Amino acid sequence: MSEISNLSIKLRLIHENEIAFGPGKAELLLTIISTGSISKAAKQMSMSYRRAWQLVDAMNRCFSSALVITQTGGSHGGGAVVTPLGLEILQLYQEMQQQALLAATPHYDELKSHLKSAP
Amino acid sequence: MSEISNLSIKLRLIHENEIAFGPGKAELLLTIISTGSISKAAKQMSMSYRRAWQLVDAMNRCFSSALVITQTGGSHGGGAVVTPLGLEILQLYQEMQQQALLAATPHYDELKSHLKSAP
Repeated sequence: MSEISNLSIKLRLIHENEIAFGPGKAELLLTIISTGSISKAAKQMSMSYRRAWQLVDAMNRCFSSALVITQTGGSHGGGAVVTPLGLEILQLYQEMQQQALLAATPHYDELKSHLKSAP
Repeated sequence: MSEISNLSIKLRLIHENEIAFGPGKAELLLTIISTGSISKAAKQMSMSYRRAWQLVDAMNRCFSSALVITQTGGSHGGGAVVTPLGLEILQLYQEMQQQALLAATPHYDELKSHLKSAP
């Protein structure tokens, strides 16, 4: 059994043919929280502002109310705040991922035991 | 709550920077089982033979023994058989996915309740 194995898990909440929430949007929310702006978050994630804005827009459209609110200061200049609903969705998503990973672990351990050992 | 929402889950077993097993390889194994050949499976999955062969090769290299054995008849002509280890890995993967999905369901239901209802 090699030590350089791991299990990647990606959960995506699909709503009307759109990804309402997934790994990329979760990371974007976390980065907006830490940077306080969409443009800074985009830069930190090596993503265009346009792409980050599209992800925020998709989240805001899919949920019953906005997950991110942009503040005045122009389209690139103003800050952005993750709303209480945004924080709740993020937390639910992270807990869901943790529960799924936990449930997958016994089978993962068995799968891992069949991998080729490092030479 | 809309009825056109769903939860997509993708589990990938990573081994030495390579995907040893994941959704695409699981589907390929299933299609090799049903068609009896890599080239027919590739065609059915709208994938090049080369790509299908690369996926088979990656699986065979990552695990302790081959998951797919090709039979004589030329590089494209011969049939392919999923080995007992291949069947075991496939079953473990499917069970792992099922367990993860089951564990994610309570949080998914809660996330879903925050989605915008269809107009």
